[in-house]
Amino acid sequence: MALIGVDWGSSNLRAYRFGPDGEVVDRRESHCGAARLKRPEFAGVLAETLEDWIEADTLVILAGMVGARAGWHEAAYLPCPANPEDLAGAALRVEDAPVRCYIVPGLSARSANGVANVMRGEETQILGSHISDGTIVLPGTHSKWAQVGGGRITGFTTVMTGEMYALLRNQSLLGQLAEGDATDEGAFALGAQRALDDPAGALPLLFSARAEVLLGSLSPQSVASYLSGLLIGGEVAALRERARDGVMLICSAELAALYRVVLALAGVADVRVLDGADAVAQGLWRIGGLLK
Amino acid sequence: MALIGVDWGSSNLRAYRFGPDGEVVDRRESHCGAARLKRPEFAGVLAETLEDWIEADTLVILAGMVGARAGWHEAAYLPCPANPEDLAGAALRVEDAPVRCYIVPGLSARSANGVANVMRGEETQILGSHISDGTIVLPGTHSKWAQVGGGRITGFTTVMTGEMYALLRNQSLLGQLAEGDATDEGAFALGAQRALDDPAGALPLLFSARAEVLLGSLSPQSVASYLSGLLIGGEVAALRERARDGVMLICSAELAALYRVVLALAGVADVRVLDGADAVAQGLWRIGGLLK
Repeated sequence: MALIGVDWGSSNLRAYRFGPDGEVVDRRESHCGAARLKRPEFAGVLAETLEDWIEADTLVILAGMVGARAGWHEAAYLPCPANPEDLAGAALRVEDAPVRCYIVPGLSARSANGVANVMRGEETQILGSHISDGTIVLPGTHSKWAQVGGGRITGFTTVMTGEMYALLRNQSLLGQLAEGDATDEGAFALGAQRALDDPAGALPLLFSARAEVLLGSLSPQSVASYLSGLLIGGEVAALRERARDGVMLICSAELAALYRVVLALAGVADVRVLDGADAVAQGLWRIGGLLK
Repeated sequence: MALIGVDWGSSNLRAYRFGPDGEVVDRRESHCGAARLKRPEFAGVLAETLEDWIEADTLVILAGMVGARAGWHEAAYLPCPANPEDLAGAALRVEDAPVRCYIVPGLSARSANGVANVMRGEETQILGSHISDGTIVLPGTHSKWAQVGGGRITGFTTVMTGEMYALLRNQSLLGQLAEGDATDEGAFALGAQRALDDPAGALPLLFSARAEVLLGSLSPQSVASYLSGLLIGGEVAALRERARDGVMLICSAELAALYRVVLALAGVADVRVLDGADAVAQGLWRIGGLLK
């Protein structure tokens, strides 16, 4: 049986064609993200993208925002703890697809204090890491810190670091004083160290990105880096207890470099990195194997 | 000598005409805020607004963004600690005004950790409180928590609570699921309590304003209140050590009501409130008395 995995997020679609042992033998990409499509358009986009990959016995596994309420079909959030079998068992069969096709559900979690969290797409990356015990960090727009134990995803927390950075850099009063992008390593490390040092975390420090410029102690060209350092520093400061025994980062090389700096400042020695695209492909293969 | 005080912020101008004992005998308001004017326009706006109030011996004291770099004339930040005499002594004489006129400088501060802060306008409100020892909280777009000791403003911290609320409510992915304004007292208290209970503060909780809606445990109509509770709760959580012996709030009655709820949840018993407009008028009178 031929297996294809598709990471179908809000803005993009990335398809992976697997060989018999899970190796990616071909990949295709499209800008037809789930947020850009109306429900009746999904089947056609999938058929066009996969095209000649589809054979009689092909199985297609979809993960990501394609399964959100505003996506193709809603694959309801599965509560943690959940293992690969739970995720495969709850996968939603898509009846109007051009081929046998399932959508991986997202996950939900509640903290001991009752605070809700959801993820959609990251659960597949976590499975793709093949980590059965430990802390997995998926930096991004909405960074996820997931705990894995005994092969199950037991819980997770979200920090809106990437979205906060974009809002503060581009739409806030802080951002008005900023020029250019985040390229000043010294300013980044200063922001991160301050957030790690402050027992109250990053919130009471954000305004300093404006005050330092007004007082002439930070250049407008360094504001973006300083702000990025404060926010990633604040994320790591809030959750560093979970990183004590090391973490696996799943993200791009660029984000991994930034998180490595901050985790080192926080005294986290054991940091491994898995590329986000490799992780999602491996996760799709793993779930596909359970649905064959 | 006749004294007039003007609170000239970014969006508005509020003028107070004082009687011989500091009582406000008349007030005028204009939408000609400092952010809307070019430098040559300030003198004319002041003359038009004060008009028949101006007598031969009138002294006018201005405070707020009128003294910012992009205002009429820059009245440089004075470093803390500073007392009323320091502020009056550093007031900037405005040579191109239609009357004898000074601008009150803003204040700057650095934490023990070297983190910068600035305020402009709030220093005048703090003087207007006539508090000589204690913690003064000025909630708003950029909330200020100031320490006063021996009649001097010794330091302060800024938390961007109001601006963060506006960004998250109106421009973020959280806000997309929100309907209406913050009117749900239960959701507000839930958010505040969660932020106060979480040792990591509000940052890792913000995303729950989205997750709770997706899981059906918070209605879209309650998101704004919940978010407001998380942010004000996070502000108080970060700085509650300073509130142990009570606080003076300087703000509108609406904001005071919200902060009273959160401070009570945080176990702060002694909370006094001073109206923000009364505070600025009293502060302008006090500085004017030192410049007569």
